[in-house]
Amino acid sequence: MSDARKSYDELKERMAEVAELETIRWILDWDEQTELQPAGAEWRARQAARIDGLTHQRATDGKIGELLDTLEDKLDAFGGEESDEAANVREWRRDYDRKVKIPQRLVEEITTTGVQARTAWIEARKEKNFSLFAPWLEKQFELAIETADHLGYKEDPYDALIDLYEPGMTRAEASRVLSGLRTDIVPLIEAVAGADRHPNPNILHGSFSPAAQQEITIGAITRIGYDLNRGGIGETAHPFCITLGPHDVRFGTRYRETHATDALLSSLHEAGHGIYEQGLSVEHFGTPLGTAVSLGVHESQSRMWENRVGRSRAFWESFLPEFTNRFPSLKGTSLDDFLFAVNEMKPSLIRTEADELTYNLHILIRFEMETALINRKLKIADVPAAWNEKMKQYLGVDVPDDSQGCMQDIHWSVGLIGYFATYALGNIYSAQFVEAFEREIAPFEKLIRAGEYLTIRDWFRDKIHRHGRRYSPTELVERVTGSAPSSDSLIRYLTGKVETFYGVSS
Amino acid sequence: MSDARKSYDELKERMAEVAELETIRWILDWDEQTELQPAGAEWRARQAARIDGLTHQRATDGKIGELLDTLEDKLDAFGGEESDEAANVREWRRDYDRKVKIPQRLVEEITTTGVQARTAWIEARKEKNFSLFAPWLEKQFELAIETADHLGYKEDPYDALIDLYEPGMTRAEASRVLSGLRTDIVPLIEAVAGADRHPNPNILHGSFSPAAQQEITIGAITRIGYDLNRGGIGETAHPFCITLGPHDVRFGTRYRETHATDALLSSLHEAGHGIYEQGLSVEHFGTPLGTAVSLGVHESQSRMWENRVGRSRAFWESFLPEFTNRFPSLKGTSLDDFLFAVNEMKPSLIRTEADELTYNLHILIRFEMETALINRKLKIADVPAAWNEKMKQYLGVDVPDDSQGCMQDIHWSVGLIGYFATYALGNIYSAQFVEAFEREIAPFEKLIRAGEYLTIRDWFRDKIHRHGRRYSPTELVERVTGSAPSSDSLIRYLTGKVETFYGVSS
Repeated sequence: MSDARKSYDELKERMAEVAELETIRWILDWDEQTELQPAGAEWRARQAARIDGLTHQRATDGKIGELLDTLEDKLDAFGGEESDEAANVREWRRDYDRKVKIPQRLVEEITTTGVQARTAWIEARKEKNFSLFAPWLEKQFELAIETADHLGYKEDPYDALIDLYEPGMTRAEASRVLSGLRTDIVPLIEAVAGADRHPNPNILHGSFSPAAQQEITIGAITRIGYDLNRGGIGETAHPFCITLGPHDVRFGTRYRETHATDALLSSLHEAGHGIYEQGLSVEHFGTPLGTAVSLGVHESQSRMWENRVGRSRAFWESFLPEFTNRFPSLKGTSLDDFLFAVNEMKPSLIRTEADELTYNLHILIRFEMETALINRKLKIADVPAAWNEKMKQYLGVDVPDDSQGCMQDIHWSVGLIGYFATYALGNIYSAQFVEAFEREIAPFEKLIRAGEYLTIRDWFRDKIHRHGRRYSPTELVERVTGSAPSSDSLIRYLTGKVETFYGVSS
Repeated sequence: MSDARKSYDELKERMAEVAELETIRWILDWDEQTELQPAGAEWRARQAARIDGLTHQRATDGKIGELLDTLEDKLDAFGGEESDEAANVREWRRDYDRKVKIPQRLVEEITTTGVQARTAWIEARKEKNFSLFAPWLEKQFELAIETADHLGYKEDPYDALIDLYEPGMTRAEASRVLSGLRTDIVPLIEAVAGADRHPNPNILHGSFSPAAQQEITIGAITRIGYDLNRGGIGETAHPFCITLGPHDVRFGTRYRETHATDALLSSLHEAGHGIYEQGLSVEHFGTPLGTAVSLGVHESQSRMWENRVGRSRAFWESFLPEFTNRFPSLKGTSLDDFLFAVNEMKPSLIRTEADELTYNLHILIRFEMETALINRKLKIADVPAAWNEKMKQYLGVDVPDDSQGCMQDIHWSVGLIGYFATYALGNIYSAQFVEAFEREIAPFEKLIRAGEYLTIRDWFRDKIHRHGRRYSPTELVERVTGSAPSSDSLIRYLTGKVETFYGVSS
């Protein structure tokens, strides 16, 4: 065996240990979100911190740096830059450098601050009192700026942060991609507001047996190609998807008795994440080539199954009869009325409840505020006013209190800064991917109508999932669609949708 | 702070890390038994091995030995041998010595052999072919003998093995305690066989809604004092109880549609284990004082709730109406008939399906065979014949094949040797404890009839649970009952039961 191969295998073995520890950590998380009682939370936090500490120690072991140094000079032994080994070495280097650049003290401070800030956030929300949260928000942004300084960046400290979630993305590039959203979506929102026809969303509210919802949901996610033999579904307050092993991808969902489609659509969303994870290379599990490339690309998959499949006419042609069979209150509801309700577009206060059209502006507001805060162009004390002003400008909405405004999301409290943009990037990529698919294969609606969900799944598996982190998100978008990331496809899709449902255009 | 205190705190901190890792391991187990799909088993085994390795490394760190050496000379600083600290130091020493005495190579060989032997056992059972299992059984007993040699013993290598599960117990003492079982129970079994009246066990078989069983079960275990806020219930093929943290004690159970009382009674059993764990000192969690003392004492608690409560007339006076309400096939069944069916006594082949009377002889057979095998007085090849002969002698049962005979239990395949005796010791202790309770407080039936389950729970919490490993099992039995472990109480109870139900005596 060559020296290069020996070094590579040693590195791979060390990284496998890291992957084992990381997935153990996710088992603790899965259990915490699906089964743990509040009384058990304190000990669980100790267990989680213990595993985090061990993982960090192993992942930053100096021997890893040495092996990377050795290997970077010997990539020819594997066939050069295009080889699997070269791709893994490149990405392992990325991860390693990032981890060793941030001092352990800072890692611990972010964790501790996260716990305290989250508690303050919960309290501040309950009290609708931003001043209780402000010092913690300030602390988290200061820690994020410090993190960015340690990580290093060329132009903007925000570059170092967004890169944690969307590798290779920068503030400038994200601004370029997201900037069209406001210009193009605001007029669409105005057009919708002035339309003559509007849906009756009450159709979706009432009493819908959770047991029946569960059966329908499991049927749907199985049909689209989520493999229950390599996964599982749990019940949880906040839906999420998590990978516990190469053949163990689970998601948590919830069955709200009062809402007809909430469980199904959010399960399609989580199953979309799960299908991505299940489509990663098993052979490469625990290495970058067996790991999803970015949050944006991840979100492109979940949104696609939720919105492009789960809100399509073709989908409901087959599912509405199942719904009306199981849920008496839906008897007599027409496909047109039901579909319009499922696709209602209407400005609202809360991001997580926003529709496909307005959602992107919720993200744009957060992105703009984050970048301003990181660059110290906005003061923490001015966050509520700035938030409310943007909500008015972009969505025409008045924010009654900060709990429904700038304090609605958990992200900043736990130090997730640079993260929000990936949600809108997901929508943008998703629209680009679907256009590419339709150019290459057939209209989505046609395949959905024929029940050929696996054709969709397998195309995405081939084009995206199986590559792991071989390409950067931007490279991947270019390879799959032939174009750089751009909001054009999303705007085209939304414009068409507004026209179809509301009969108006901007 | 004194030097002794400093050393103690350092040791405690190190042992807390071990406890964190151990309970992480149990989370993996819990998840494996309640949620994991078979496809995920391979990666889970790697995760489990990783945690086991880390735990072993931490628990056998030489620094622990040094701290124990230091502390053993300074126990006066804590108030002497009776102090909490002294008890913990004594038991930590026990654990540490045991772990360092067994070479790492042997630990690994036992684990690896366990995995392979278990696979062979499954195959051999399916094929009803003992010869497929024999080499693995031989290997496990050889490894057990080697383990005993490393651990050391005074009289019998078996002493070193049973001590792993029942601290302080020896072969001689266990023989003394268990010997009465055969002499006294065989005549009772014969008397029952010759009785004029017999129950109709078919009452318990039919179709019983699992959802209704679940509701009744949760109601029952809550009523007896299992705290769902510090625990949880999952579904599993093989019921078990497990502790994941100081406020996180869970059990897995199963709801068989075809059997009326299986879920309820096995849940009472597991809840009994859970109540013991929930009654341990939270302050001392992760130290010997916050840990259950032995498998035998544990089983005394589970058996008590299952049999002394769950099969009592008083219990069914209140539960039978609930059953007949929920399960139509039970309408019209009298309390006498139902209770007789629940308390049927009849020799059978399978230990896990045996009744209270005959169960103990199943254990005696295993105990006698284990001790003979460990002392090389029985050859592996002769196991089936010896097994079948004892089944005939003790229980009057003919064994049709080894899958229903000497290959029915998983224990030996995974190296659990010296373990079986604790099941019978549990029954024996339980009868002694109940007699002590009745002398001190009131007849069990009276409290059950009054629904005063918490009086029972709290007495056992006070007398047993809260002490953790402060006393050895034998010391504990003597403290609680005033007598050494003895089968007299159990025989008295079983004799009375045979007379009550079957109207006969030996």
